[in-house]
Amino acid sequence: MKKIINGVESLLEESLNGFAKAHEDIIEFNHQPHFVSRKQKAESGKVVLISGGGSGHEPLHTGLVGKGMLDAACPGQIFTSPTPDQMLAAAEAVDNSSGVLFIVKNYAGDVMNFEIAAEMLDCDHETVLVCDDVSLPKDHSTGRRGVAGTLIVEKIVGAAAEAGATLSECKALGDRVNNVTASMGVALTSCTVPALGQPTFDIGANEIEMGVGIHGERGREPMDLTSASNIVDHLTNAIDQDLNPQQGQKVLLHINGFGATPLMELYLMYDLAAHYWQQRGVEVVRSLVGNYTTSLDMAGASITLTLLDDELIELWDAPVHTANLRWGC
Amino acid sequence: MKKIINGVESLLEESLNGFAKAHEDIIEFNHQPHFVSRKQKAESGKVVLISGGGSGHEPLHTGLVGKGMLDAACPGQIFTSPTPDQMLAAAEAVDNSSGVLFIVKNYAGDVMNFEIAAEMLDCDHETVLVCDDVSLPKDHSTGRRGVAGTLIVEKIVGAAAEAGATLSECKALGDRVNNVTASMGVALTSCTVPALGQPTFDIGANEIEMGVGIHGERGREPMDLTSASNIVDHLTNAIDQDLNPQQGQKVLLHINGFGATPLMELYLMYDLAAHYWQQRGVEVVRSLVGNYTTSLDMAGASITLTLLDDELIELWDAPVHTANLRWGC
Repeated sequence: MKKIINGVESLLEESLNGFAKAHEDIIEFNHQPHFVSRKQKAESGKVVLISGGGSGHEPLHTGLVGKGMLDAACPGQIFTSPTPDQMLAAAEAVDNSSGVLFIVKNYAGDVMNFEIAAEMLDCDHETVLVCDDVSLPKDHSTGRRGVAGTLIVEKIVGAAAEAGATLSECKALGDRVNNVTASMGVALTSCTVPALGQPTFDIGANEIEMGVGIHGERGREPMDLTSASNIVDHLTNAIDQDLNPQQGQKVLLHINGFGATPLMELYLMYDLAAHYWQQRGVEVVRSLVGNYTTSLDMAGASITLTLLDDELIELWDAPVHTANLRWGC
Repeated sequence: MKKIINGVESLLEESLNGFAKAHEDIIEFNHQPHFVSRKQKAESGKVVLISGGGSGHEPLHTGLVGKGMLDAACPGQIFTSPTPDQMLAAAEAVDNSSGVLFIVKNYAGDVMNFEIAAEMLDCDHETVLVCDDVSLPKDHSTGRRGVAGTLIVEKIVGAAAEAGATLSECKALGDRVNNVTASMGVALTSCTVPALGQPTFDIGANEIEMGVGIHGERGREPMDLTSASNIVDHLTNAIDQDLNPQQGQKVLLHINGFGATPLMELYLMYDLAAHYWQQRGVEVVRSLVGNYTTSLDMAGASITLTLLDDELIELWDAPVHTANLRWGC
């Protein structure tokens, strides 16, 4: 295993220390228990948004804390859920007496820990469960996984909360965005979790893993390495079957790198995916291309589509000022 | 070789097509010859900044075209200099009759091609040569290589040009920033250039390449894989010996990922490097952490330090609106 680290035990703490130093104008890092919150607390009356999950997906979620998006994020150990004490401490630190919205990716550990925290919270609260990964069928026993669409939920609901939406409005909006968002990814290599010290899964030199999860979970099927056009068609067809957008539908197209795939390849995928939707009569009106929901050092990428209306476009465009997503301010 | 591409020949064109589609609000892509320029041309009277170089380092340089930074960028094939016709066409497209400043990384091919273009330009022009890589000695036969410090030169001079600096002022400022900027990188793996189809250089499973260049050029020495602290000390000591900042000196600290290194590790490096400078009595007042000057899918990172004064801080902070660097607007 080749990593720029001092040790498996200290990696998360040292990394968060660096993150906090580099962005001390935007965020604060609480050490015991771990959470990251806005340096400048939101004004009274605003619903606060808290997310979290295993580390190793940066900039999700810590890099998305700031005005217009999250109020706090709780990082667990790598690919491991944070614990309820983190969520409770974060909620206590940022609560504005207007309600707490948890945004949770659908993984058993995350769901359980956020549920426990929710039960212990003595303020109004709601949870939005993100499950945008269409590599699994809709009726999968534990539901679909939450992947790169999470950022889109966080951005749009974050803007609504900033604009004064109530807790129930934020909850309804988050569920709505989740329902019109679909993602699917492909891995060319496994990632290597430091504590494990070796690749999470085996993959042949001429093989790709179609429908991979962001922790290297096996997806739909391993396939022979094929052209970018075939890869993008495969991913986009799955999304198309799930969302089935109407002619003239406006959409946000997000190409997300898993960490080790060059930007050149991500933009090439964008070109192919945008072409697909154009041929389908679907109008790509917003885009996001880059490494946002990563899987450590995995090579590969995912495609996410969100169906937009004027309200969602306005919320997407609203100013956001976080460490790793910033526009309009 | 595992890449999400359709073919070696079409990769650059398809990738630039995707880039242009994803950022059509900011840039325009000219196909014959290849260059990217601002969608909204700078106002009359502004010195125009043009950079370029081999592709494979994205977001450098195309992702840095926009208000407050470059007016145009000329992408060559992967790790191959662009040609004079690209620079001339770009200059013709963006020229404002107030002079053209070329910002060129110090590589033989880039230098030669930009020199030829400069000779053929029939307007006022100057060139800033960036040579911030301290892995080579100052008296190296072809001079030091230009690496991640290039972005800093482009940002600061871009802000000055936007504020009305003349061509000679922009040239002097660019040279000044280059002189107070020093970088050094380390590779954990080689990158794989698609046309070559295999890793550029061999590196042992327990080896790192200290002082690597952004095309995988051999650096100072291969070393045994060691802790992040040792790696950062090695890089930072080399920078320290070169720049020798005074006590109380304000600096910008930039941790640049080469493409396949997780953000967690880059922030951990930031923590260690920031600590080093703090101990040295040097004040880190600005930071930039992320993948900005990449080497395709190379694992590794570089550290860049720029000595700042109030003028440079103000120019660094000035609004910038490009595809991949954006703040203040």
